[in-house]
Amino acid sequence: MIKKRIAILGSTGSIGTQTLAVVREHAALFEIEVLTAGSNAELLIAQAKEFSPKAVVITDERKYELVKASLKSLEIAVYGGQEALSEVVQREHVDVVLTALVGFVGLKPTMSAIKAGKDVALANKETLVVAGELIMDLAKKHDVKILPVDSEHSAIFQCLVGESNNPIEKIYLTASGGPFRGKDIAYLSTITKKEALKHPNWIMGQKITIDSASLMNKGLEVIEAKWLFNLQVEQIDVVVHPQSIVHSLVQFEDGSLKAQMGLPDMKLPIQYALSYPERLPSNFERFDFLQYPNLSFERPDMDTFANLALAFASIKKGGNMPCILNAANEVAVAAFLNDQIGFVEMSVVIGETLEKIPFIDSPTLDDYLAIDEAGRVCAKELVTKKKKIYQIEK
Amino acid sequence: MIKKRIAILGSTGSIGTQTLAVVREHAALFEIEVLTAGSNAELLIAQAKEFSPKAVVITDERKYELVKASLKSLEIAVYGGQEALSEVVQREHVDVVLTALVGFVGLKPTMSAIKAGKDVALANKETLVVAGELIMDLAKKHDVKILPVDSEHSAIFQCLVGESNNPIEKIYLTASGGPFRGKDIAYLSTITKKEALKHPNWIMGQKITIDSASLMNKGLEVIEAKWLFNLQVEQIDVVVHPQSIVHSLVQFEDGSLKAQMGLPDMKLPIQYALSYPERLPSNFERFDFLQYPNLSFERPDMDTFANLALAFASIKKGGNMPCILNAANEVAVAAFLNDQIGFVEMSVVIGETLEKIPFIDSPTLDDYLAIDEAGRVCAKELVTKKKKIYQIEK
Repeated sequence: MIKKRIAILGSTGSIGTQTLAVVREHAALFEIEVLTAGSNAELLIAQAKEFSPKAVVITDERKYELVKASLKSLEIAVYGGQEALSEVVQREHVDVVLTALVGFVGLKPTMSAIKAGKDVALANKETLVVAGELIMDLAKKHDVKILPVDSEHSAIFQCLVGESNNPIEKIYLTASGGPFRGKDIAYLSTITKKEALKHPNWIMGQKITIDSASLMNKGLEVIEAKWLFNLQVEQIDVVVHPQSIVHSLVQFEDGSLKAQMGLPDMKLPIQYALSYPERLPSNFERFDFLQYPNLSFERPDMDTFANLALAFASIKKGGNMPCILNAANEVAVAAFLNDQIGFVEMSVVIGETLEKIPFIDSPTLDDYLAIDEAGRVCAKELVTKKKKIYQIEK
Repeated sequence: MIKKRIAILGSTGSIGTQTLAVVREHAALFEIEVLTAGSNAELLIAQAKEFSPKAVVITDERKYELVKASLKSLEIAVYGGQEALSEVVQREHVDVVLTALVGFVGLKPTMSAIKAGKDVALANKETLVVAGELIMDLAKKHDVKILPVDSEHSAIFQCLVGESNNPIEKIYLTASGGPFRGKDIAYLSTITKKEALKHPNWIMGQKITIDSASLMNKGLEVIEAKWLFNLQVEQIDVVVHPQSIVHSLVQFEDGSLKAQMGLPDMKLPIQYALSYPERLPSNFERFDFLQYPNLSFERPDMDTFANLALAFASIKKGGNMPCILNAANEVAVAAFLNDQIGFVEMSVVIGETLEKIPFIDSPTLDDYLAIDEAGRVCAKELVTKKKKIYQIEK
């Protein structure tokens, strides 16, 4: 494998640090060109000292001076602010940009990377949720690869190598079901933030952990998969698989299913995205059937976990709906983590926001920026009117 | 896909008839060039009338005149006798030879097909069990493909497309466990032929059904897999999976597992072997997770099902041992189906035969023919001394 030079957007988060763990294991094959962080200056500084990138970005400008000062003896360019993300991804020696930002903010730097001809290892699913058609068209135009990092999409991507001429009949995205699988709405309405942040299988950041508990994460993944693999929504099925061993499946036109499996460890899909099409030896713990004598599967409960139904409805309608869904969800999750609304209210906020913002069939990038903003404003209003929301509760 | 012209060796058996079912569904893509049968003249004649091959062989020479007379108005060359198999596979217009013969008799026509430059769709696992190294070397030399038809090997083959540069760490061959899974030796010693012929999941011929019940089939598959995928025995694991949905798995060096899955239907791997690398649309029943909410896995009981342990031991030692194992097993299964020995005695006959025939490290083809013969003679002697065998019984 030729050495790959990597820019990591969001290097201090869960995916970012796991990416650096992979890079550390394969120092001869990967080189860190760029690291960026939101506000965790301390970790960014430590990472920069270990991996010697050519450039770092701290988007929280209040931390810029600290980072700058701490790295002044090293040959590292230091930038501050959100806009710098879209600049650093274009650097000449970057081969692949791993986007591990959380939420809508990933969109602009991802587009910038694609336009600069960089392959994108995509861990920021919101980018495809919001503007999947735009992104995939852009990637095609600039002949760059979009390499999925999400374990489910990586599973499907792995199952598709060597099958390029064979149409997909359908895909199954597996879902752990989260910590509240099998619970009813009455139970969900009592959930605390602390309970929701405990994910049984995967180590993840806060936002995605809440999204996993509410099944919104699976909804976003359905939308992501639609764009990534050029599918109709009807070709995408979600199956709950509590053990998180089967990471997803592809069914071909002959009826054959291919699955990718393994212990839940994000380092594997991260490494695959970076080494594709090669696989690199790893010391990741191996799956053992005797430790998992039963793999179980069940239908997701979309009545109780309304977020998944809302996601399916929004991508079925298309246009600006997934963008609204995502904006409202980001606001709702933040409000839940802020103790402003309850677990069940998140779906209410999202559902109401989807109803209130006018439908647009084929948004432009500017439309998306405006829709995202409008969705947030609307969702925030609903959050502040939470007393009213409580009354709406079924 | 360019139309493929097929010779089916063993067209009246379970795999043969299922192959013709696949051909019937895709008449524009496949053409039958050759059909051969052992003694089922009636079915061979009917098949010839439907599929208009250029040549047919009936190996039971007593049936030759009947077949010849029945097809005299058609432009079909009719041959009799075993040797004719090695002739017809060389016909100019044959693209792929599907070998669905049962047992050692598949070896010579398979070698003949390879030498004539024909791709081989291999359903006759005994060929690789007996002389795997010879066959794979020959296939390499003549640049022909060996396309597995066994569902387990097809599963692995399907998981390997697009992964040609990625070494296999290990493979898991799944086994249904057969109808006597969980039983002890005392129970096995009471088994009747009728009970052993009922396989819960797959529709198969008699010999393979007995082999499945005794786990010898899985043992033969371990040996077949070793040669087909160029593995060390230590890289092959057998896992019992009673639902027969996961058809086998490959684990790569990064720890990622890929599995091929589906309802148990031999038509799928048959079709894949014929259409590879393409997949053809099929009307095969689709797998549904809700019908299989639990997939279970367990370690095979090699103490009770000694045939599997014997197979592992024979391929570990290598040389002529798998050939002896196969010869003794063919005799033992025939004797069991003939009510000459009991279910457990089959393992005794095989184990004793393996001990009695001298070890040869690197047999030639002539050696194999002699070893096969010696193995049969030895095993038959043991069968006739079955009273003595009953006394050996643990």
